[in-house]
Amino acid sequence: MASERIERRLTAILAADIAGYSRLVEADEEGTLSQWKALWGTVIEPKIKEHRGRIVRVIGDGILAEFASVIDAVRCAVEVQRGMAEHNAKAPQDKRIEFRVGINFGELIIEDGDFWGDGVNIVARLEALAHPGGICVSGRVQEDTQGKLEIAFDDIGEQHLKNIARPVRVYRVRFDEVTKSTPALPLPSGRNGLGLGRGLDI
Amino acid sequence: MASERIERRLTAILAADIAGYSRLVEADEEGTLSQWKALWGTVIEPKIKEHRGRIVRVIGDGILAEFASVIDAVRCAVEVQRGMAEHNAKAPQDKRIEFRVGINFGELIIEDGDFWGDGVNIVARLEALAHPGGICVSGRVQEDTQGKLEIAFDDIGEQHLKNIARPVRVYRVRFDEVTKSTPALPLPSGRNGLGLGRGLDI
Repeated sequence: MASERIERRLTAILAADIAGYSRLVEADEEGTLSQWKALWGTVIEPKIKEHRGRIVRVIGDGILAEFASVIDAVRCAVEVQRGMAEHNAKAPQDKRIEFRVGINFGELIIEDGDFWGDGVNIVARLEALAHPGGICVSGRVQEDTQGKLEIAFDDIGEQHLKNIARPVRVYRVRFDEVTKSTPALPLPSGRNGLGLGRGLDI
Repeated sequence: MASERIERRLTAILAADIAGYSRLVEADEEGTLSQWKALWGTVIEPKIKEHRGRIVRVIGDGILAEFASVIDAVRCAVEVQRGMAEHNAKAPQDKRIEFRVGINFGELIIEDGDFWGDGVNIVARLEALAHPGGICVSGRVQEDTQGKLEIAFDDIGEQHLKNIARPVRVYRVRFDEVTKSTPALPLPSGRNGLGLGRGLDI
């Protein structure tokens, strides 16, 4: 039967897009593009690679990346958000490019290198619930990373996500806690994330 | 840091062991061994291979197998239990080799090809909750396979599993439902599972 040939895989997915992208582009098209390129080359792509992620899709101002490990995905997201905050600290408020990030894991259907399935829909909704500079994760991500990463989460309750039948428990990464506990987070030698997460999310 | 080098992977795990193994061996050592070898060669190993699983560990009368897809893992378990039931139908009651099966998915630590982590502990506990010939799965397995497989589950509630801090919701595969809905389960051509699942589990 044809359905036997569908490739399925358990994977962690990270969705990210730029908060207020249209506003940024409208205000300064060339400046936004050049900032985006700088962030992409110095923060986003290197961090995804460092945490063994793979970029699955880039659509306009959004990306979808996969990770074999949910711990790698969460670490990557935290470091991307820190890196972007560091970059933004030098830019004026209205020129800042900030990511909203969502993370989930589950079984996806893989076709021609792209992903389909509930897991993709859920992660896009999680991302939309994140504050600019913040990260939202599903309950199972929180469950499987708690105690394994020095990250605190705020439970924002069960959410009814668009086009998803069952409610999904959603958690926000608490960035002040991440900052406090930085020494326990494995970081590449020669770098540190101290003070980068402040004010990223509530 | 050393913790950065740990290999972690999201994976579906299936644990199975023989119900009443000691009793079987005590009653008929040689007969049990020869039956086990027959089941292994004709049902267990071929089914795991067919569903793209990999046997991680064989300890005495138990096995641990991994699957990239939780749907493959559940399909495999259902077909193994059917195959074993078919084999057992020809054997006297006291000579039947029956598997208890547990299925879970989550992030595991991989070291020298073997697996470690909460996920392994949970799946061993799920297996212990299964009836002989039956399958128990965690809530997230039920959640991610419901509507994707023609299998009915019975909710047996939140269980406090040994050495696992948080309670785990547990479901049993309902085998009479599996049997009824066989035509919708993709089966390899030339085979069918009609009538094999009757009486396997409540």
